[in-house]
Amino acid sequence: MMAGKLFGLGVGPGDPELLTLKALNRLKAAPVIAFFAARGRKGNAFAIVESHLAPAQQLLRLEYPVTREKLPDGQDYETILGGFYDASADAIARHLDAGGDVAVICEGDPLFYGSYMYIHDRLAARYDTEVVPGVSSIFAGAAVLGTPLVYRNQSLSVLSGTLSPDDLRARLSQADAAVIMKLGGGNLAKVRATLAELGLLARALYVERATMAAERVLPLAEVDPETSPYFSIILVPGRKWLS
Amino acid sequence: MMAGKLFGLGVGPGDPELLTLKALNRLKAAPVIAFFAARGRKGNAFAIVESHLAPAQQLLRLEYPVTREKLPDGQDYETILGGFYDASADAIARHLDAGGDVAVICEGDPLFYGSYMYIHDRLAARYDTEVVPGVSSIFAGAAVLGTPLVYRNQSLSVLSGTLSPDDLRARLSQADAAVIMKLGGGNLAKVRATLAELGLLARALYVERATMAAERVLPLAEVDPETSPYFSIILVPGRKWLS
Repeated sequence: MMAGKLFGLGVGPGDPELLTLKALNRLKAAPVIAFFAARGRKGNAFAIVESHLAPAQQLLRLEYPVTREKLPDGQDYETILGGFYDASADAIARHLDAGGDVAVICEGDPLFYGSYMYIHDRLAARYDTEVVPGVSSIFAGAAVLGTPLVYRNQSLSVLSGTLSPDDLRARLSQADAAVIMKLGGGNLAKVRATLAELGLLARALYVERATMAAERVLPLAEVDPETSPYFSIILVPGRKWLS
Repeated sequence: MMAGKLFGLGVGPGDPELLTLKALNRLKAAPVIAFFAARGRKGNAFAIVESHLAPAQQLLRLEYPVTREKLPDGQDYETILGGFYDASADAIARHLDAGGDVAVICEGDPLFYGSYMYIHDRLAARYDTEVVPGVSSIFAGAAVLGTPLVYRNQSLSVLSGTLSPDDLRARLSQADAAVIMKLGGGNLAKVRATLAELGLLARALYVERATMAAERVLPLAEVDPETSPYFSIILVPGRKWLS
């Protein structure tokens, strides 16, 4: 029997209309739809494509065993997550071995911080695989904020809010333009203080859940760091050129 | 009379199926489609959407007066290009003033090095404007190459091949993962030498015109720097995590 084909489908930043024609076609053709979700949650990727699914399509829900990196003594985040991705890849491989195609859906782009990457690393060498790129939240954020991101020969630095203040300072002071992601868990206060220190606060823009139903734009100064969600980003656009 | 609405539509990296549902809907509804093109060329964005256009839609072709930065004595690239974007914005504004919506189409994402940015900077404050984000060539490249780009808390540096060797070295040596764009005009040889110097050659991947009809993947070592096209990129993926 021919093994099935593995698809990694980027389904975009949140607005279901930001799905590509290709992702939609692949999604509709797949007998099995795999998606990641936190316990008690529907899953962002699933919510984006839900209206396009047919009753005959089988859902393979892959539920994160943990969603925080800080765990009780004796539990190691990397071990738990590595085991989870091993088991998830095994569950997907069983469908592929039985000859069925599996589409792993992923918010944004699947190879840009997506959980699909951990499936890809485990299965792409063994099965025929196709990745369909998607619209990243970075560009959704720029579109919602209505700001060009980088001009001409400027460089763009995509940084994680988990970086130390020293690392953030070093990288931001070199950047022509920057996007800072992963602002949840209290990282926002640190990032905001570093931007202020570097005189970048006036250029910085903030958006939560760009293009999702709960999208919110507000001045960075007014954001409560304790409640800033995982899907929030800060943009520091490059300096305008030719205007 | 109500002025028309300005749309900046990302039409993706090249494969017409990588258009989003939203861009397609906005495209079909617009009476005027504006697009940038080099002299004697169809225009990449136009080629991507061509099959979706109806005869009644008016085309506004905006032709770059120059495509190289090095010009004969007495001619200044920035002055010429600035004047061109002023005139292009004026041409678009005439349609908007007459009450017609105008969709400016742009390969990749419109706010990420797109020519639409220069129209946006000139008109967005004066007219109702909507930007539809698109799939960037960065993610198309990663998809075609089948490689995860950045893991977990890694940073991504998007760099221009026009940077000096010193700047490239400084930025690449700090990067967890990198994408290098603008490799045409002989920049590739310089970039490749810098990657070799930093011991990054083994991690570097190369693709030309990802998802376009003329897509080509080849080992970076085999690329002829003289013919490497504008739409080529080098990826230096982040080090794998959890595998």
